[in-house]
Amino acid sequence: MDKNEEKQREEEREQVVSPWEVSSSGKIDYDKLIDKFGCQRLDQSLVDRVQRLTGRPPHVFLRRGVFFAHRDLNDILDAYEKGEKFYLYTGRGPSSEALHLGHLVPFMFTKYLQDAFKVPLVIQLTDDEKCMWKNLSVEESQRLARENAKDIIACGFDVTKTFIFSDFDYVGGAFYKNMVKVAKCVTYNKVVGIFGFTGEDHIGKVSFPPVQAVPSFPSSFPHLFSGKDHLRCLIPCAIDQDPYFRMTRDVAPRIGYHKPALIESSFFPALQGETGKMSASDPNSAIYVTDSAKAIKNKIILLKCADKQVCIFWRTRKCGIT
Amino acid sequence: MDKNEEKQREEEREQVVSPWEVSSSGKIDYDKLIDKFGCQRLDQSLVDRVQRLTGRPPHVFLRRGVFFAHRDLNDILDAYEKGEKFYLYTGRGPSSEALHLGHLVPFMFTKYLQDAFKVPLVIQLTDDEKCMWKNLSVEESQRLARENAKDIIACGFDVTKTFIFSDFDYVGGAFYKNMVKVAKCVTYNKVVGIFGFTGEDHIGKVSFPPVQAVPSFPSSFPHLFSGKDHLRCLIPCAIDQDPYFRMTRDVAPRIGYHKPALIESSFFPALQGETGKMSASDPNSAIYVTDSAKAIKNKIILLKCADKQVCIFWRTRKCGIT
Repeated sequence: MDKNEEKQREEEREQVVSPWEVSSSGKIDYDKLIDKFGCQRLDQSLVDRVQRLTGRPPHVFLRRGVFFAHRDLNDILDAYEKGEKFYLYTGRGPSSEALHLGHLVPFMFTKYLQDAFKVPLVIQLTDDEKCMWKNLSVEESQRLARENAKDIIACGFDVTKTFIFSDFDYVGGAFYKNMVKVAKCVTYNKVVGIFGFTGEDHIGKVSFPPVQAVPSFPSSFPHLFSGKDHLRCLIPCAIDQDPYFRMTRDVAPRIGYHKPALIESSFFPALQGETGKMSASDPNSAIYVTDSAKAIKNKIILLKCADKQVCIFWRTRKCGIT
Repeated sequence: MDKNEEKQREEEREQVVSPWEVSSSGKIDYDKLIDKFGCQRLDQSLVDRVQRLTGRPPHVFLRRGVFFAHRDLNDILDAYEKGEKFYLYTGRGPSSEALHLGHLVPFMFTKYLQDAFKVPLVIQLTDDEKCMWKNLSVEESQRLARENAKDIIACGFDVTKTFIFSDFDYVGGAFYKNMVKVAKCVTYNKVVGIFGFTGEDHIGKVSFPPVQAVPSFPSSFPHLFSGKDHLRCLIPCAIDQDPYFRMTRDVAPRIGYHKPALIESSFFPALQGETGKMSASDPNSAIYVTDSAKAIKNKIILLKCADKQVCIFWRTRKCGIT
């Protein structure tokens, strides 16, 4: 192993970002992540273009670089400028009773995109994924999906343009046909390369990537987009979901669809500091929309903060605790 | 490699039986197959028991040993004797325009079982499987499923007790929930052991075994068996489908269902002889229900028969050609 290789391995140990794990020995290095994933930085000229096209001030998450990376956002804007509409697709894996602040980021931003571009939106609740990864029963995953849907609805989406669905309810028919089409284009070795599955992982995990892929294709929703197979799709999400859509973008042209475009956010830092993200796996890392004022105060007072800056931020700005 | 091992490998080379391939250097040795798969021989006492319980002469396929192996058939009969009903599940992978004589064997036998035991029946058309294995388009697989359904219906099932479905139409809802439950119980290594997949196989193949598994569970059909989660299932099929149901039987008790019972047939020999089965992959090996009398005659006259006995059988008994 030469020095460069050693350095790279060291860096990989320091920073892990996958759909299931986000951790880092220091602050997460988003530039490195852009390089590694092969997406593009979302620069000021794109932010300005969004403003020009929508006639609205860009969302604070755009201005402040919370959404900082993208894939083919320019293509979506080119098409929009020519009068073509697109649709938005985002989602949630229901692993907790309620949403926390980190979960709200894509939904708040998606609401802004829906309002600004006046486009339809599909929201996937991956209750099947959480049933398989978290060892929840089918019934419990569905219950969590329903609870989470309430928090999502509260973000204020346009009810005439928004379709929220749970996989356990909706998978089948045209959606299942697209799943099969995607699955035929992806080898086991390929998903191992993308997601790092091992032979001891159950086959549900191997089967899942097509489920998250196909909402990117309008024909998966015949009751919404019948006859509009060439409608483009824009996916706002946190950057840890990028592997699913790298796979999807690879497959899309082979089965006759546009590659979905992506607009990707950084992570909402855990209460413990910026080396991880607010995560439902560790309730003390997160503030939930259902937490009482007292509970929030306690979480922050009790915080053994690893990162002084974050600690001061939370202690002073959010709760007025000094 | 010692001599025993060598002998075993030699035998394995001589005889291949999987859901995708049946071939042998000589006649297929069904005793060896029973040993290898670990199922039981269907003996005369069981045939007699079927006759006693149904009050009918056993089907010619039972009397002549075409259905020659089983798993837990005794359990089904015990339950039936106590007044419990069961249901039948069989299926067809629609890989050809029409059914051939080999395809008819499980359907003709299943019709007899339905009539004799007066039980409901589900018939799965695995258009998704054939789309994935045969590189057919979704649309073509569905068309074949529809064509095949006509031939199946012509076998004369009780229309009030029979549900025929295509996976592309029916997968979803309760069926998909059971698929996920099964998938969670089966590792990738396990399906490699059972089906011999490699890393270069697409993930659709890895995802499919739960689709063929779950019709064994009554809760996959809520409109038929609602509230009857403990209804037993009997599967008549050719013995090459055994791997799917070995897997299913392994999983069933872990997710709260009875193991399905099986009654398994030998293969309908190819026109070329008893070393293979009549197969849609080789149209000259098979006589189709849509073949004209002339076409059948020609197939047999042109036959270069590898097995003299089979050749004489076909030439004399079936067509009166001498």
